[in-house]
This record gives sequence, structure tokens and C-alpha cells, in this order.
Amino acid sequence: MTVELICVGTELLLGNIVNTNAAWLSRQFASLGLSCYYQSVVGDNRQRLLDLVRTALGRSDVVVLSGGLGPTPDDLTKETVAEAMDAPLSVDGRSLERIRGYFRARGVAMSPNNEKQALVPAGALVLDNDNGTAPGLILEKEGKCAILLPGPPNELQPLFLEKVRPWLAGRSGEVISSVTVKLCGIGESLAAARIADLLEGQTNPTIAPYAKTGEVHLRITAKAGDEETAAARIAPVVEELYRRFPKEIYATGEEATLEQAVIGLLAERNMTVVTAESCTGGMVAARLVNVPGASQAFLGGMVTYSNEEKKRLLGVDPHALQRYGAVSEQVALQMAAGARKAAGADCALSTTGVAGPEGGTADKPVGTVFIGCQVGEKTAVRKYRFPGNRAKVRESAAAAALTLLRECILGVEDGA
Amino acid sequence: MTVELICVGTELLLGNIVNTNAAWLSRQFASLGLSCYYQSVVGDNRQRLLDLVRTALGRSDVVVLSGGLGPTPDDLTKETVAEAMDAPLSVDGRSLERIRGYFRARGVAMSPNNEKQALVPAGALVLDNDNGTAPGLILEKEGKCAILLPGPPNELQPLFLEKVRPWLAGRSGEVISSVTVKLCGIGESLAAARIADLLEGQTNPTIAPYAKTGEVHLRITAKAGDEETAAARIAPVVEELYRRFPKEIYATGEEATLEQAVIGLLAERNMTVVTAESCTGGMVAARLVNVPGASQAFLGGMVTYSNEEKKRLLGVDPHALQRYGAVSEQVALQMAAGARKAAGADCALSTTGVAGPEGGTADKPVGTVFIGCQVGEKTAVRKYRFPGNRAKVRESAAAAALTLLRECILGVEDGA
Repeated sequence: MTVELICVGTELLLGNIVNTNAAWLSRQFASLGLSCYYQSVVGDNRQRLLDLVRTALGRSDVVVLSGGLGPTPDDLTKETVAEAMDAPLSVDGRSLERIRGYFRARGVAMSPNNEKQALVPAGALVLDNDNGTAPGLILEKEGKCAILLPGPPNELQPLFLEKVRPWLAGRSGEVISSVTVKLCGIGESLAAARIADLLEGQTNPTIAPYAKTGEVHLRITAKAGDEETAAARIAPVVEELYRRFPKEIYATGEEATLEQAVIGLLAERNMTVVTAESCTGGMVAARLVNVPGASQAFLGGMVTYSNEEKKRLLGVDPHALQRYGAVSEQVALQMAAGARKAAGADCALSTTGVAGPEGGTADKPVGTVFIGCQVGEKTAVRKYRFPGNRAKVRESAAAAALTLLRECILGVEDGA
Repeated sequence: MTVELICVGTELLLGNIVNTNAAWLSRQFASLGLSCYYQSVVGDNRQRLLDLVRTALGRSDVVVLSGGLGPTPDDLTKETVAEAMDAPLSVDGRSLERIRGYFRARGVAMSPNNEKQALVPAGALVLDNDNGTAPGLILEKEGKCAILLPGPPNELQPLFLEKVRPWLAGRSGEVISSVTVKLCGIGESLAAARIADLLEGQTNPTIAPYAKTGEVHLRITAKAGDEETAAARIAPVVEELYRRFPKEIYATGEEATLEQAVIGLLAERNMTVVTAESCTGGMVAARLVNVPGASQAFLGGMVTYSNEEKKRLLGVDPHALQRYGAVSEQVALQMAAGARKAAGADCALSTTGVAGPEGGTADKPVGTVFIGCQVGEKTAVRKYRFPGNRAKVRESAAAAALTLLRECILGVEDGA
């Protein structure tokens, strides 16, 4: 079964946003065993979209469209696909009620143009959208199929995973199954070198390394006639990876996150943690709070961006600030110790660094970050030099902080 | 002049890499005043690429292709374009010498298949690539033009900027210019409804609304013979938008952010702010710290995720926690007041809510968030009900918090 992707939006043609939906959906197609030979981007223009939809329906079995389902007049996807497939639009009462309910629940007045979002092509399957007002649609005709999804990733992704993926899986004869093994505390090159022999001769399953901020993901993918056979091909490879990376693998699973692994370790041990952040400015805390139920282990955090706050909230010694500077091993350790003591937590994590673009010195250039960690009476501090701009340095620092906490809890950290 | 983009590579179709070349080149096209109506991605397959190149040359003046110029047999772009444009390939002596030199300089043996990279279609302009072995090519025939660029961004970008951009600029008679006006505190539908008359009859310039988390962006785009005329067309529309949204527009400019606007307002007034976050868990602080130089206005923040920390750090009244619950107007206000007092700041911002997936009640379902704000002696508190999953609720809450602070500083907040 072939699938083709059309992303609709002038903002994509102008390069104002990067087409992450295309990459995300393509991975989904691949994992479903669907062959995707074409992706296109077209603007909010009826005639060009119409031509493209006709071409795509001519050469592919399934055409997935994202974007252009909004309430404004330049949102044309549904109208145009309905025209291409000769399926007149009419109001779907249930969708209209859902859209009204969406606004009611938020106590916001519904604008009349939102009614347009309840129009549905004749014969279409309506996919309820729990995260927005535009429902998804599946329209089949004469052996061809169009699937319409809203453009915002936070609406598109759950809608695809919950409604479209099972629908497509039911029609595809082959299964492609993937398992992602996630590593922290190791770079991509080093990780790839350690499994060079596995990467060399791979056919089915395959192993593909992906570099993420502060992490490396290894995706193992197998093809088979059914899920069970695919899983049986993947399992020994995952086992082998655990043997190669006993310290670095923090979880297995596409949805697993490092913060989840850290909260899990703390919860298992009945331990609590506080954060004391300077350069990351709340990012470490925000990542921990990403985890549902974080409150069982995460007590809270302090964002001590100014020296005054470092003294007031964390009891950092003014002399240490003066002598070593706020960005120093000593201050990182004092921040962690002060936070832990003040909150009465078992563990504490601190960050202090030069995120840039200003503030770098010859001695401590932009990207220099110290991370302090206390787990019980054990302390660790590490110095990093992260590449990239302000945002990238801060993201890298937050990932490194979680990695250090994990290693300290497990007792596998180097040095310190 | 119209331009069309074809990115060649199976790794794009599989979603293994995100198509950042498309966004980068699109912005280049737009800034050159070229109209780009189509972008496509196709794999390393001769027939499909050939069909696509023919279609593209039929509907666009210039077709830019990226990728597929490597030495391996699955690199087919040059061969296929040469076939589509009926321009036989032959070895270009100068390119072959450059490729040999490239390997010599690195002390690496040249593989015979790299000779393929010196093949050039008859009549093509060869663009020397200083960062790799595949030269770029410009091939013109019968009023149509194909431009071939290597796929790696570190080769494509310099080649485009140094060789292709000046070549295209010489041929384009038109300039496209865009200005983005950014709004907060209003939804997309409501914003669109308020400018329905402007959206209706638009031709040049055009206005396109984009929904972002907690924000709406309005992009005004004009075409003209030169930059000045385009700017003169955009200016009155921007002015009119400021009349329609006197309270909601926080900035104009593609790179502007809400946190920047807030830090700017505080700095102008010589005011400082602290944050006290529960459900957002540090996201508000992290956004403020996104702004280089945030330290002039942002003192720090407290992430008081547990009730204990709310009492300890913010002095929240235990009776208020018990009587109204942590997620309440009263606690939001006490958090803001306590944070402001403790840090000696001028302003304070607090968040407390049910981010989900657990913790919702009939009275306070998932998505319920209270945001408290103090600016001097003035206080405000607002209740929200945000849609979506945990991450979305928290992102929406962080955006709403910054919006409320902005409104309180400006004295334009409703109610409270």
C-alpha cells in the first residue's frame, strides 16, 4: 500500500516554519510498512492544491493531508479535497456540538467562522479531535483514500496515533516494528563506535542511531508478517545493546523520557529531590514536572538567577561568589547543598553557567556550565563546555543535570 | 518568476531527518521575491524523480533540486535532470581536477566512483563547491532552469549564498517582503473575526493569521518592484492592526518573543519580577531566562510543587491550602504576594493548576489553572481552563502568565 503526504500551508512555502509534521508522519508510515514515495508542500491556494490532490490520488493509494482545516477563509484543504473526490460538504451535527462544547467549556464566545469546521464531506469518517476544534477526516472513494489532519503537531499527533494509525494498520499486509533504546551520558560517535560491528552487517532488524540533545537514541526496526515475529527479531538486539551500554541506557520505548527515568528511580527509592538553577532558569524543574505524578519525588526548585537570590534562598557564601564567581565548581556545590538543606530533600541538583551570548570570558567562555549534585551525603560536580547558542547551551545543561542525578543515584558516575 | 523546490533523498521520505533545507531555501526564495508554490520530496528513484522534474519544469520557471549528487549509484539527481532536459553528460576536466585535489589535500585515496561527480550536463554552468566533492550546477534550456545543489546543509548553504543567490537576484524583477505582528491574550478565531473585513478583500499585501500556544501571529506580506515599495505597502496595514488590537499586540518582528516583550517592559520601568510556579514547574522562569540579559529584571523564581514548599518558601497560609485547595484563586494570590515579599521584587507571577492526566475533579477538571499577578500594590488573578494534554496545559499556562503580567504592567487587564 502506498501513501503520499501533502502538507498545506503558505508558512511552510515561505520557510517560516520547519516541516516537522512531514518527518513525524513519515516515520509513522515507515513503521506501518507503508511505502511513501512523495511528499509535497503547497500553499493555501485552491487551484494548486486541487491539482496536487488529483495527481496524488492518481499515483498513491492513500493521501494524507495536514493543515488548512482552520476556521479562516484561507483554510481550504477540506473544501478542495471534497471537490477533488466529488463529495459535497454538509454540516455534521455531532462535530458542531463538539466545537460548541469546546468553546463552552472554556467560557469563550464561539466565532461564527468556527461553524465551517463542522462541515464534513459526504461519506467521510469523522475523527474527533480532543485537542482542538478541527476534526480529522477519512474519505474513501473508488479504492483511493484521503486522510485530513489538523496542522498543529499537538493536535495532529494524538489524532494520528489514536485514530489513523489503527485504521491504516488494519489495511497494511506487512508489519514494521521498532523499538527505541535511549542512552544518556554518551555521544553519538562513541555510541556508534561501540556497536560498529552490529551496525556493519545489519539487514533485518536494522539499528539506526539518532543524536538528541544530551542523548543518543538507537532505533531497532524489524519487518515481518506479524507483530510477534517482528518482536522476536528485535528482542535479542535490545538485549545485546543492554550488554554494550549497561550504564548509559536509561529506558526503552519511544515515549520514555530521561526525566521519567529519574523520577522513577527516586520514587523506587522513596527519595525526594530539589533543584537550584541559575543558567537553566527553571528548565530542569520544568522537565521533572513534565512527568505525571512528579510530586511524589520532586519537592520544588529555586531559580536563583541573581547572586542575591543565590545567597538568600540557598545560603551561598558571598565570599565564594566573589572569589570564584557565580559560575564555578564551588558555587555549584554550595547551591546544591543549600537547596537540599533548605527543603529537607534527599537529593539536590544545581546548574550555573554562561549561556551567552554575553558574559563569556577567556577563562569561562560561553557554554561553560557547572552542574552540582547531592544524593544523600554524596556530592558530585562536573564542568561542561556546551556548543551552540543560548537556547542550545541551556537545553544541553538541563539534560546533563538529569544525567548526573541519574548516575549519582545509581552510583555509576565517573570521578567526583 | 516562480521557483519550485525538489529535495531528493529516501532518508527524508522515511522521516529519518527533518527537511531543514526546505525551510532554509524557502526563506531565501521569499527574500529574493521569488514565488514558490510547490515543494516536493522524492526518494532515490529514477522514474519518480524524472516524472517530478518534468512536472516541475512544466509549471515553474526555476526548479531547485537538493541532494542526490553523491558518488554512489543511488545518487541520481544529475543523471535524471540531464535526461529530462535532454542535455548529455560528459566529464568536466576542471571539476575532476578539483575533486582529485580535494582528496589529495586530505591525504585520502579517491574512490573511482567519485569521478562520476565530475560529469556535467552539456551547457551547464558549474558552481565550484569548496566544502565537498559535488559541484553545484545551473542548467538553462528553453526558458526553464534547473539548479542542482548538494544535500548537506554545510555544502548547500554557502554554495547557494555565494553562487546561486547572486545569479537568481539578477533575474528576479520582484521583491516579497513580510512583517509579522504578534498578539497575546486573544484566540485565532476572535482575532480573525475582528479583521474579517481586512482578510476578505486582501490581495497585496496579504494578511495570514497563525495560531501559536497562547498567541496569534499575523503575517503581512507584500510584493513590489523593490524593498521600499513593499515596505510602504505593509506599513499602513500594520498601523491598522495596531488600531484593531491596541491591547493585544506585544511586538512586531519575526524574532520577537512574548518573554522579550515582558522583560523589555520591566526594564523600561526599572522593575523586577519573581515567579512562583506550581503546575508550570519552572516554565515561566525558563521562558524569562530565554531572553539574553534577563537578569536586569528577573530576580529568580520558586518552583513550589509541594504544599510544604508553598508554605516554606512563599508563606502560603496552611488554612487557605486546606480550605480552598492548592489550586485556587486564594492560593494563587498568596503565592504571588509571598514570592514578591520574600524576594523584595516589584512584581510577582504565580501559577497553580491541574495539568493532568490525574488530579482533576468535577469542580476543578484537568486544565484548570489559576494565575496570580502582583505589580506594585495591584493584584490580579485569573482562572483558565486549558485544553490538551499535560504538556499543552502547562505551555498554555506559561503563556497566559506572561500575558497577564504584561497586561498588569500596562494596566490593560480586564477585571480582577
